[in-house]
Amino acid sequence: MAGKTQTRFPEAAAALKEHVRLVPDFPEEGVVFQDLTPVLADADAFGTVVDALAQAAVEDGADLIGGLDARGFLLGAAVAYKLGLGVLAIRKQGKLPPPVHTEEYALEYGTAALEIPADAMDLKGRKVVLVDDVLATGGTLGAAAKLLASTGAEVVGNVVVLEVDGLGGREKLGDVPLSVISQDTVEA
Amino acid sequence: MAGKTQTRFPEAAAALKEHVRLVPDFPEEGVVFQDLTPVLADADAFGTVVDALAQAAVEDGADLIGGLDARGFLLGAAVAYKLGLGVLAIRKQGKLPPPVHTEEYALEYGTAALEIPADAMDLKGRKVVLVDDVLATGGTLGAAAKLLASTGAEVVGNVVVLEVDGLGGREKLGDVPLSVISQDTVEA
Repeated sequence: MAGKTQTRFPEAAAALKEHVRLVPDFPEEGVVFQDLTPVLADADAFGTVVDALAQAAVEDGADLIGGLDARGFLLGAAVAYKLGLGVLAIRKQGKLPPPVHTEEYALEYGTAALEIPADAMDLKGRKVVLVDDVLATGGTLGAAAKLLASTGAEVVGNVVVLEVDGLGGREKLGDVPLSVISQDTVEA
Repeated sequence: MAGKTQTRFPEAAAALKEHVRLVPDFPEEGVVFQDLTPVLADADAFGTVVDALAQAAVEDGADLIGGLDARGFLLGAAVAYKLGLGVLAIRKQGKLPPPVHTEEYALEYGTAALEIPADAMDLKGRKVVLVDDVLATGGTLGAAAKLLASTGAEVVGNVVVLEVDGLGGREKLGDVPLSVISQDTVEA
């Protein structure tokens, strides 16, 4: 598939393209895995990507950043720090002590779940922007939005580095704005 | 055990004490689990803790921050962003596509391993400060130091929010400086 590079964030998209680690035929033949590790480890690229995500989060009206376990933590925490906000770690199931709020979601085979503490924080009325590395099927971001709604918070934006087209991810996010640095820039 | 509160970072220690979520008898009877989720989600507490960790990382001479999967990602990424550095995500085994560098370490039962990409980044000569939430047995931080040494990088500092006394963690870190915001402030 030919790459599409339309983006509101050309500088961040260029940094991404320069530093991303492309691993062909992973996790299966014909797929090119985009590993962001070297992007994050490069000071300039990391700063540029975080600044772009933070700009999107501000436009969405964030007063709290939600980071998705685990790679979303790397981006979400930096965005939160830049904006003077807190970061809510949205964990994979089984990482937190009880009591927790839990939201299940479907995987290709079976289910997984996300959790946050059910005490010690009042999230009612908070405006949360979710930050993650990749939007693929949208299962994780969709579940995070439901999880937060159950606490009285509202997800007002979704901000990701990469969107993989053709997996229906956008449809899982309803009317909540989605900001993306780069779509499918790889030719496979 | 009586709490000890000696710290170089009194403001961060106070923010921690105010917001930490204490879960008694987790993961086993007599242990009080300290969940940092509400600390990170509070804008002021998060900023204060990150600023303290960043100060320590600067004093250690960091030119790259290493974040430990997964909670260390939240702190390490914010520290890196504040300092204008990159963040190296040091992953649990099995998360990264090949080729990878791998370092095993012992758990109470069995072993685990940490990994980073073995291509696309040149870490030779880099001065890395490792950031994590808790120093307990020191197994993870010790393994991360060995992993980085195998790439030609050097760990020049370890920076953590909480140190749990009495588990021998410090001894695993050799002569590399350790900075801690708070030791064992909980009475159990």
